[in-house]
Amino acid sequence: MNFHFAAQLANLKPSAIREILKSAGDPNLISLAAGNPAPEAFPSEILGKIAAEVFASDPTSVLQYSVTEGYAPLRKKISDLLRCRWQIQSRAEEVLVTSGAQQAIELTARALCNPGDVILCEDPSFIGSLNAFRSHGMRLIGVPMEEDGISLAALEEILKREKSVKLFYTIPNFQNPTGRTTSLAKRKKLLELAMAYDFIILEDDPYGELRFAGEKLPPIKSFDPSGYVVYCGSFSKTVAPGLRLGFAIAHKELLARMTVAKQGEDVHTALLSQVMLDRFLQQVDYDSHIHRLQEIYRAKADVMLFGIRKEFSSRIRYTVPEGGLFIWATLPDEVDMPTFCKKAAENLVAVVPGKAFCVDEQGLSHAFRMNFSTPTNEQIEKAVQILGRLTKEVCGA
Amino acid sequence: MNFHFAAQLANLKPSAIREILKSAGDPNLISLAAGNPAPEAFPSEILGKIAAEVFASDPTSVLQYSVTEGYAPLRKKISDLLRCRWQIQSRAEEVLVTSGAQQAIELTARALCNPGDVILCEDPSFIGSLNAFRSHGMRLIGVPMEEDGISLAALEEILKREKSVKLFYTIPNFQNPTGRTTSLAKRKKLLELAMAYDFIILEDDPYGELRFAGEKLPPIKSFDPSGYVVYCGSFSKTVAPGLRLGFAIAHKELLARMTVAKQGEDVHTALLSQVMLDRFLQQVDYDSHIHRLQEIYRAKADVMLFGIRKEFSSRIRYTVPEGGLFIWATLPDEVDMPTFCKKAAENLVAVVPGKAFCVDEQGLSHAFRMNFSTPTNEQIEKAVQILGRLTKEVCGA
Repeated sequence: MNFHFAAQLANLKPSAIREILKSAGDPNLISLAAGNPAPEAFPSEILGKIAAEVFASDPTSVLQYSVTEGYAPLRKKISDLLRCRWQIQSRAEEVLVTSGAQQAIELTARALCNPGDVILCEDPSFIGSLNAFRSHGMRLIGVPMEEDGISLAALEEILKREKSVKLFYTIPNFQNPTGRTTSLAKRKKLLELAMAYDFIILEDDPYGELRFAGEKLPPIKSFDPSGYVVYCGSFSKTVAPGLRLGFAIAHKELLARMTVAKQGEDVHTALLSQVMLDRFLQQVDYDSHIHRLQEIYRAKADVMLFGIRKEFSSRIRYTVPEGGLFIWATLPDEVDMPTFCKKAAENLVAVVPGKAFCVDEQGLSHAFRMNFSTPTNEQIEKAVQILGRLTKEVCGA
Repeated sequence: MNFHFAAQLANLKPSAIREILKSAGDPNLISLAAGNPAPEAFPSEILGKIAAEVFASDPTSVLQYSVTEGYAPLRKKISDLLRCRWQIQSRAEEVLVTSGAQQAIELTARALCNPGDVILCEDPSFIGSLNAFRSHGMRLIGVPMEEDGISLAALEEILKREKSVKLFYTIPNFQNPTGRTTSLAKRKKLLELAMAYDFIILEDDPYGELRFAGEKLPPIKSFDPSGYVVYCGSFSKTVAPGLRLGFAIAHKELLARMTVAKQGEDVHTALLSQVMLDRFLQQVDYDSHIHRLQEIYRAKADVMLFGIRKEFSSRIRYTVPEGGLFIWATLPDEVDMPTFCKKAAENLVAVVPGKAFCVDEQGLSHAFRMNFSTPTNEQIEKAVQILGRLTKEVCGA
């Protein structure tokens, strides 16, 4: 059989991370390579209770087909939640419930970009989004990251040069993979640039609620008077990823296009998941629920940071995130990063090579990503010890 | 705000059917416009029991992220099910679990077709698939339907002329919208043509299990030695659509591309749905379950057919389906079909104008689609009575 594959998909590699996870067969391997939320953070008991309630009261309503836009009471609750927690003024009609934030991101790009159109991305950035954009033949241009978000100078230079920029993709809070947070000043400036150069900001905020240090910053969407920002959120980190629930907040005209595209992808998001989330948001004290998660993630990040300070070579630079799931460590220039990651795996610690997140697939990286949410404290301690020893081997104390 | 939408989505209309359903606000309106399975066919009780079991035994396993390919035990069960019920020889690795068959169809097209490539479709055909193909800029060419499937002569003529045919999309059993079934001879000939002209057959079989008359016919996939057929199935009609569960069976190389595309769309299908279906398939006597559904649909189809025979003008032609959810009625050429459907709606009966299913959006149709699975028997009787009166008004007894 000799297949003629679509050009856009023919050369696209599956996510390096998901492949690493699949092949992580050795039960002694400690994986810092995932991006999975901490299982102890799942509100399993209340979700089980809710599932029972739903089937006892009105099973047909979760088993039948539904509308593409999403379960109406849930759209309303999401819009209320965003107003009161993030000062995003949106009506229920501006909410599209999606099958994870991944779909919200993909639909935004599909609604706005023709193949060949440019999407600007923080460099490095989340591989799941980069691959989604690539799979539709969109052209990615990376904007270098600084400690407080992208380089605005580099961004303006690209905007002056490139005429087909449709989107700027950003994860402003505890970015994946770097753990960095975009400053308030840069958030405001980004919106100004979007208005001046006429592009849309795709604000991806899966980790915003998982802030365990520093001061809460308003989303770019909260400054947006007229629809220059699409805000994508997720319940994968705040409730449970297995339910596959995310959403997009967008101008109604744009949302209508995204809805048509979603119809062709999956008709609507799993209704049992939607109804369960709706009841969850109704029944729990959301503030306390989120506070509990923040404490879990703070503790785990602290274990990893404490270990890094103690064990790593002083020549390794690393981010100290104010939230989220990741720490980004950078090796000195003379150390070969892929060799280091391979050696780590041989020593039974999996990390993700920074190259996986480069916007330019031929790009160079000296960094690697470590996740602290999935492993246990004991695993984090042990993994950091092993990594620390390896860093000292390659670049001294 | 002045959006610059992607060309492929800019002019695409939302599904006429889903729009009709949304605006069907009048509680007295009887809708024969949906394609929803009969709610009494849902195995609600056992699904409720299973949901409780899952949360009681191992909630974390359904709440965490999972692999894109699908829940491994479910992939195995689907492959077993297809072997024993449909003589499709596929291994678990050739099964991709999707978020409804809609996604399986869309991913097949994305993996194989560049924008502008040709997809041949039965004319008329399922609007959800047509719109998915259109939304990716693929070029659709319709092949006229006969009583026993498409016209092979017309197909061959197109194949000789068109050089960029990548896919032939077919619903061989109780087709949507016509209710027609492709004969065994045509199924075999289609595969021969695919091999001769080097295109892939996308065999969409959401209704195959709902056969209530005539003889079971083997799927095209069951004759396929080497991967010319992608078989897409659904649990929306056999279990429940709200769970959003479908699958594709394809050659491993093709499945790998579809998996990468799915990663970018929704990472994986809702895990709670997948695990619940896996346990359902393990616990029920599937033969008896399907037999019960067939009886429900047979009875409903009979009510509609009995009414049509009694009430409709003799000048209306209609299909007598051997399964599925739909009856396709054709008005005499001199009657204006859209006016007829509008009149039906004013008389509180919703049917879908045939034009919605035309492959060429400017195409002409004298037919309309009636669904017998969603309404109650009383609603079917009343609706057919009203439609019958209208048919006699426009074209005599």
